[in-house]
Amino acid sequence: MEGPELWRELGQQLRVDSIRAAAVTKSGHPTSSMSAADLMAVLLAKYLRYDFDEPHNPANDHLIFSKGHASPLLYSMYKAAGAISDEELLTFRVFGSRLQGHPTPAIPWVDVATGSLGQGLPFSVGIGLAGKQLDRLPYRIWCLCGDSEMAEGSMWEAFEHAAFYGLDNLAAIIDVNKFGQRGETMHGWDLDSYANRAKAFGWHAIEIDGHDVEAIDEAFGEAAAQQGQPTVIVAHTLKGKGVKEVEDKPNWHGKALDHPEEAIAELGGERNIVVEVANPEAAEAHRFEVSGGELPTWELGEEVATRRAYGDALAALGSIRGDVVALDGEVSNSTYAEIFRDAHPDRYFEMYIAEQQMVAAAVGIQVRKWVPFASTFAAFFSRAYDFIRMAAISQADIRLCGSHAGVSIGEDGPSQMALEDLAMIRAVHGSTVLYPSDANQTAKLVAEMADREGIVYMRTTRAATPVVYGPAEEFQVGGSRVLREGDDLAIVAAGITLHESLKAAEQLAGEGIEARVIDLYSVKPVDAETLRAAAEATGGRILTVEDHWPEGGIGDAVLEVLSEGDSPARVVRLAVREMPGSGKPAELLAAAGIDAEHIAMAARSLVGAAVGSR
Amino acid sequence: MEGPELWRELGQQLRVDSIRAAAVTKSGHPTSSMSAADLMAVLLAKYLRYDFDEPHNPANDHLIFSKGHASPLLYSMYKAAGAISDEELLTFRVFGSRLQGHPTPAIPWVDVATGSLGQGLPFSVGIGLAGKQLDRLPYRIWCLCGDSEMAEGSMWEAFEHAAFYGLDNLAAIIDVNKFGQRGETMHGWDLDSYANRAKAFGWHAIEIDGHDVEAIDEAFGEAAAQQGQPTVIVAHTLKGKGVKEVEDKPNWHGKALDHPEEAIAELGGERNIVVEVANPEAAEAHRFEVSGGELPTWELGEEVATRRAYGDALAALGSIRGDVVALDGEVSNSTYAEIFRDAHPDRYFEMYIAEQQMVAAAVGIQVRKWVPFASTFAAFFSRAYDFIRMAAISQADIRLCGSHAGVSIGEDGPSQMALEDLAMIRAVHGSTVLYPSDANQTAKLVAEMADREGIVYMRTTRAATPVVYGPAEEFQVGGSRVLREGDDLAIVAAGITLHESLKAAEQLAGEGIEARVIDLYSVKPVDAETLRAAAEATGGRILTVEDHWPEGGIGDAVLEVLSEGDSPARVVRLAVREMPGSGKPAELLAAAGIDAEHIAMAARSLVGAAVGSR
Repeated sequence: MEGPELWRELGQQLRVDSIRAAAVTKSGHPTSSMSAADLMAVLLAKYLRYDFDEPHNPANDHLIFSKGHASPLLYSMYKAAGAISDEELLTFRVFGSRLQGHPTPAIPWVDVATGSLGQGLPFSVGIGLAGKQLDRLPYRIWCLCGDSEMAEGSMWEAFEHAAFYGLDNLAAIIDVNKFGQRGETMHGWDLDSYANRAKAFGWHAIEIDGHDVEAIDEAFGEAAAQQGQPTVIVAHTLKGKGVKEVEDKPNWHGKALDHPEEAIAELGGERNIVVEVANPEAAEAHRFEVSGGELPTWELGEEVATRRAYGDALAALGSIRGDVVALDGEVSNSTYAEIFRDAHPDRYFEMYIAEQQMVAAAVGIQVRKWVPFASTFAAFFSRAYDFIRMAAISQADIRLCGSHAGVSIGEDGPSQMALEDLAMIRAVHGSTVLYPSDANQTAKLVAEMADREGIVYMRTTRAATPVVYGPAEEFQVGGSRVLREGDDLAIVAAGITLHESLKAAEQLAGEGIEARVIDLYSVKPVDAETLRAAAEATGGRILTVEDHWPEGGIGDAVLEVLSEGDSPARVVRLAVREMPGSGKPAELLAAAGIDAEHIAMAARSLVGAAVGSR
Repeated sequence: MEGPELWRELGQQLRVDSIRAAAVTKSGHPTSSMSAADLMAVLLAKYLRYDFDEPHNPANDHLIFSKGHASPLLYSMYKAAGAISDEELLTFRVFGSRLQGHPTPAIPWVDVATGSLGQGLPFSVGIGLAGKQLDRLPYRIWCLCGDSEMAEGSMWEAFEHAAFYGLDNLAAIIDVNKFGQRGETMHGWDLDSYANRAKAFGWHAIEIDGHDVEAIDEAFGEAAAQQGQPTVIVAHTLKGKGVKEVEDKPNWHGKALDHPEEAIAELGGERNIVVEVANPEAAEAHRFEVSGGELPTWELGEEVATRRAYGDALAALGSIRGDVVALDGEVSNSTYAEIFRDAHPDRYFEMYIAEQQMVAAAVGIQVRKWVPFASTFAAFFSRAYDFIRMAAISQADIRLCGSHAGVSIGEDGPSQMALEDLAMIRAVHGSTVLYPSDANQTAKLVAEMADREGIVYMRTTRAATPVVYGPAEEFQVGGSRVLREGDDLAIVAAGITLHESLKAAEQLAGEGIEARVIDLYSVKPVDAETLRAAAEATGGRILTVEDHWPEGGIGDAVLEVLSEGDSPARVVRLAVREMPGSGKPAELLAAAGIDAEHIAMAARSLVGAAVGSR
């Protein structure tokens, strides 16, 4: 069997297997799988170039299910490719199985986790950028999209960027089965509505009947041959295609079939076709030559913004390591990613004001083992929070740098002030949160970030602050620094508030109060030992100070540690508690009660307080 | 002076005043203001219908600066309208002034805070929906957009929804000055690129020279007359127009001019034109008739999912109050917002899979004093976090309901499990976070939400759980319930883990351990008194249990309270600490260590531990 006959039979097999998989736990999305079965049958049998024995083969194509809920179809493809057994297919959604409800990289052939709609295409753009500009390999990215997810703005960020960067290695396939979860989509079967939008965004668009395997074949061939622009195949399909009980019927989203046996019979019964998926031609990824060099250093007492140190350090790291890549969201002159851009233009991606696509591109780029650093104002990473959350499920190693943290940015006002970023990123599984206080520390930590797994975040400060660490000092993730000894109380701070704390401690010393000052530059993981020792030494008197809302930041990180110990502690948390406005940085720090004056005041009152009494 | 002559002079005045305002603190965005000055001059003098003495006049037009950084232009318009004095204009960005770096509703004529780009247009869609379907008034929404922000996907969510809902009361004006912050935009002066995209999305598009006041007049007239679809005016402009030093020059974004006096002279000097802005025709907003009724109740012991109770209660509330409105992100059959939709179709908005636009629409709708409730899976509110953050700056009163929280959803896997939502929303200024444990409590809290200010969030549970409160019980925001007395330790939980805690307490009682069980249904604000009393009574032995990551949720909320007291406490925090997969709810609760078995185990070990010793 070959050609159209094979494709049609394979399509039926994928439907049957999707139904069988969903029958196991009576959950999942078989009807959303059945609409795209013919499309994926032709792709698997003829177009996909993928070595299932070597998922990390650099020449492999990439298959992304942006409509991640069609996982039964994806897993049925794995079975048809001989990559998993029928027995394993029937562990779908069972506790402990890698065949989860939505695809994750727990499966070696899955590049990125999907299931939050509107993300697979932006991830695909990232892989496409890697293919064109970094790896410089001819692999293709095939991305299966749902029609419902076209309502997500992130899809249009992806359309915009894919066209702008001329990603002819990318083909998006929209499975227009007309139904979302609770009813019809906005556009139903109006294929033109999708094709016209895509064309306006600079894509090549093809409309087909998604159950006509010859038309599918032709469209994929056209997509593969396309030069200079990405292709979208807009396919008219039937949800639940092939089974009368569910075909083109509403209210069958996310449900196993009531009568799987009859449905399988209607589809012609079980099949066990195994297709020979073509291996890609062997090829090596491009590697960038580097000139080497050292991380930058600064002299004690110099006034340098940590955001500036980030840019300098990242550019230097790019000269030391050829795998480092940078992206920025149209603010590279503020985050100082522009220093990297100017030094290493081939490894820099301007992502314009599209933070979701920026984070997604970083995730896509790390799929191919590059080491991306993405930057914008810290406040604007809140735009991409769902992408950051999903990146953790993707087991992605990405580095994010957010500048302009807190009220200390001054006149621009609250819309530009990150006051929730520490909370937001701390609550991401396996994340790292760094908040350096001076330039030398920043540079050392930027280098550490490159080798760290997971979501690694650095918060930088707008204002120039004095260098307090010598150029030779080393800093590890998970550490802290005691910058001043003292046993009357401990002040825990980082970034801008560390400098205020040092000033306060100086003032307090003149009054006979000896404050220990701890630079908690690693907010997660946190240096529990140093914090516990401080509580022990000070009779439990701890003062935390942060340019952040009171929830989820440095204060909570300290509380979490101390709650696990046996010593009573009285933790007073200074943080931003009222909505700030515009003003000079010093005025705003004072108004928020987190400047040296207020720290000293809180310290005096804490030292006077009894701790652990009843 | 009138007509074109007036408009041209007024345009120059707006430029001069923008330069003067930015000169005060030598910060702000005069060049971004100057490009749009002619557009806004014509709007103010001829088209805007706005009673500055009565900002809450229901018939007023709405003027939204999606490019919020052009605030000098907006404030200069207020001066030209006679709403503020020249003296006040010159407090721009000064500490304590309401004329902040970016507009906020600290100013009575500002509906929504902008400054995070890509948000003003989605907010405008919300106001447009209110005008068409709720208020049923002919006011218009004029939204000034930057070209750079067109890269944000949220703009295209707005384009999609505005066209779908036929918002001919909405006109977007794109100020295509070609420059972003750090250089050229993707499309430069290719006006077609914007117009073609807009047309493909179903808008009427007009391209003009944005400095030709007659062309502007004609375009606004055309927009105002447009029927059945929204209009976008794509205007070719020059950044810094009129001042040689900065006109059409890069690197002048966000900077005050170096030589303001010379620039003002070049523009023809200061002017003091005050235009008579037209008042709208008096009109009353539509009000919905209601049938009245009661909130639903359930019998003790019934098994009901709190998400279902949310839907029932919201529908009932809609019958009691005509101002309640619901929105949902294409999952109304999961969140049960569909019960409201079926009962009150005129007050329901289907927002499809566009969470940013959904939250923005809620913000826009509350501008007109309606009471919106927006729902989706709790995990997917992470998509709209920047909008939620900005809604707090907008002083918006919106209610969000996130269903499908935590690992207890089961087979769908981690992409659908909210495990960071409590952290995310707790870290929003002035927010309220509710997490009810049973159906009667849910209903009472839904009614409370309607009268609560700020960002009010409710987390609901997928699974049916037993009703533990009688139908007559009352619940306030900020409260808690002690469901079982005991002095050996206190278990603090909410939602799904409350039920596991009750089971554990039963088990422990059989072993002679008396556990106090606290239902912390109000996670923010939190019932500090009850928590402190529990610490006091149990010798500081507190066990928190939550279906959430360890950071930022119930555990941290409890720690924050206890850290402020004088009693030592040892808080053990059970939470989800490993990335979950698929499985049955019970399997996943057990794997996460937050089921009854694990709670009992942790309780035993806590009771055996010494607290507060050294």
